[in-house]
Amino acid sequence: MDVRLEPAAAPGFRFAGVAAGLRNEPGRKDLGVIAADSAAAAAGVFTTNRVKAAPVLIAQERVRRGRLRAVGVNSGSANCFTGKLGLKLALDSTAALAEALGCKPELVAPCSTGVIGQPYDLARYREGIAAAVAALNPGGLEDFASAIMTTDTHPKVASARLRLGGKEVTFAGCAKGAGMLEPKMATMLAFVMTDAAVSPAILRAAVRDALPRSFNAITVDGDMSTNDTLLLMASGAAGNRPLEGRELGRFNAAVAEISAALARELVRDGEGATKLVTVEVRGARNAADADRVARQIANSPLVKTAFFGCDPNFGRILMAVGKAGVAIDLDRIEVAMGGIKLASRGALHTEALAAAAQRMRDREFTLTVDLKLGKGAARILTCDLSYGYVKINAEYTT
Amino acid sequence: MDVRLEPAAAPGFRFAGVAAGLRNEPGRKDLGVIAADSAAAAAGVFTTNRVKAAPVLIAQERVRRGRLRAVGVNSGSANCFTGKLGLKLALDSTAALAEALGCKPELVAPCSTGVIGQPYDLARYREGIAAAVAALNPGGLEDFASAIMTTDTHPKVASARLRLGGKEVTFAGCAKGAGMLEPKMATMLAFVMTDAAVSPAILRAAVRDALPRSFNAITVDGDMSTNDTLLLMASGAAGNRPLEGRELGRFNAAVAEISAALARELVRDGEGATKLVTVEVRGARNAADADRVARQIANSPLVKTAFFGCDPNFGRILMAVGKAGVAIDLDRIEVAMGGIKLASRGALHTEALAAAAQRMRDREFTLTVDLKLGKGAARILTCDLSYGYVKINAEYTT
Repeated sequence: MDVRLEPAAAPGFRFAGVAAGLRNEPGRKDLGVIAADSAAAAAGVFTTNRVKAAPVLIAQERVRRGRLRAVGVNSGSANCFTGKLGLKLALDSTAALAEALGCKPELVAPCSTGVIGQPYDLARYREGIAAAVAALNPGGLEDFASAIMTTDTHPKVASARLRLGGKEVTFAGCAKGAGMLEPKMATMLAFVMTDAAVSPAILRAAVRDALPRSFNAITVDGDMSTNDTLLLMASGAAGNRPLEGRELGRFNAAVAEISAALARELVRDGEGATKLVTVEVRGARNAADADRVARQIANSPLVKTAFFGCDPNFGRILMAVGKAGVAIDLDRIEVAMGGIKLASRGALHTEALAAAAQRMRDREFTLTVDLKLGKGAARILTCDLSYGYVKINAEYTT
Repeated sequence: MDVRLEPAAAPGFRFAGVAAGLRNEPGRKDLGVIAADSAAAAAGVFTTNRVKAAPVLIAQERVRRGRLRAVGVNSGSANCFTGKLGLKLALDSTAALAEALGCKPELVAPCSTGVIGQPYDLARYREGIAAAVAALNPGGLEDFASAIMTTDTHPKVASARLRLGGKEVTFAGCAKGAGMLEPKMATMLAFVMTDAAVSPAILRAAVRDALPRSFNAITVDGDMSTNDTLLLMASGAAGNRPLEGRELGRFNAAVAEISAALARELVRDGEGATKLVTVEVRGARNAADADRVARQIANSPLVKTAFFGCDPNFGRILMAVGKAGVAIDLDRIEVAMGGIKLASRGALHTEALAAAAQRMRDREFTLTVDLKLGKGAARILTCDLSYGYVKINAEYTT
């Protein structure tokens, strides 16, 4: 399957993104709507942060029933730590969208992203909803993706087509998130739509399958948002026959691939990021060990500043490996940067450092750590820690 | 007890720091020696990183016997990931120092700090030992503290005097470490000497008591070194009577206070740090919960960049609290920055933000989080994440 970083029309869905004045930045799109022509099968996963925003609490409950007609997303305010008024704000927001679409509020999921601790203006939201619903169209995915951005430098969309159940099926997704990003359950905000005819149960299984290989396998700064949400919706407009066996596997793989493409775009646009680094750990005693090692490396400020400095700093990588607390054998461990071996059999290959430093000038490369103790493997995408990250986060004031 | 950030002579100990040419920086001190006039009672704690440097492995074994005559410390090379040759190098180094002092090698502890994966030059080390032993003097603590620095901007020393067991007893300590710093067992390198007459068992208890309140309560970047070492040595030169009961308590308190003063100096000199922030968590269900919350806050890149930007960013603090995964109640949590309340009873005090931002311009302030659920409390010292941290670590090349 060929995933393209382009929007696509997923039959049965329409999209819009409008400037509702929620951010006090004239002309900046800040309200997005996804609407299905009729109630779509839906599944979702949400942040595991103990602090959950009001829209997360509501969306979580509604998506459990397996059907959604629409999603309303605002940027600028996370509607988190806003108490009972925040819950009411999220409920009133979905009611406004439900009324405009002529459906029950229970079929509408709210999402918010932005500053924590402050609500947004409901009157402006309602006016924005009227404008957004009027603007809804099958080709509006990129407008929607633009409306949900915060510190993102560009909208992230992805799409793919494949034959399933006797029909051509489309997958179209988008995501946002550039900081406060180490989703443990889902990323900041991500939406994947398909016209496939599948049940909510199939969607839930597809999400479970896709997560470890996509949104749960990335990190920008090890911080986890209070609003992380992934929604997967299927309109059924493709009219395919029921999916079973191998075709079900291909459906799951498609969801995983489009999720992985979106997750990759999030890290590529990580706050201040100049490099996209795949941290690949193998040879661990088990997958959990490999995951711990990969996350320690991918989140170490010392390793990430070394990425920024194009410094094949083996010592920092080894420090991070040891910090993970899993079984290692220094005489066996092998470390390679962009395919160039930095260390093996207990010795550092100093003669390879210059070439590795050169390789690190690439915009993307892979750091491989082979513990040579077993078959456990893990892969985490990360980015470098640059002056840009400090600038964005020291100057972005609530 | 009054802890001063000044060197002091601890009777029974002599110190030296010399330029041995180990770092290829002419004139830069890179070899330090602590020598007791006769075998001193000793206790130590070492890194819990699974990767341990050769000198850590040897010092750990030797200090277990409870007596040390001397410590030899080089900077520039961590002598870590150096295999059997590294172990031999550490053993040969202690043998050289033992020979110069006329004692058994088993009474000498080695320490190294610097780049991982490369040994240092033994011939230069031996020449340096000769010069250092010739230079040993009771007033040499600051020279020693200078010789063990890496990215530290200045030597860190502390001292105190108090009456114990009928005699005036001196405590003198020093430490180094500015990055790769979240000791879980001890900091990078720290040494505390006293002329008190106490047993190794008393020293071990004093170290256990001091750690949670000093070196284990600080973080610069959440990264843990492979060479962390804390050694506590007592010469007995004060000639005090055996310490018991309340006096033993005062001895332990003195060790804890001098350790805390050194730990504080390490964070104050954290790589690129412009601010020293005390993160104080109370009202947690238990101490472990409080510690987890405090560490999540103290290590969050988003919180630390907000410190740098003097931004009382409540949302990021709340995000870090929620990420700790412990019990919280959003309607009860109280957060104050430098004594100015940012949030309580489920609401953000937006009117307080300007004053809090002003308070954050101070070089030192306290961030207080009260979960209001129980009596668990924890305190972690941290610093901000600045352009300077990125600069130091992107440009410091192995």
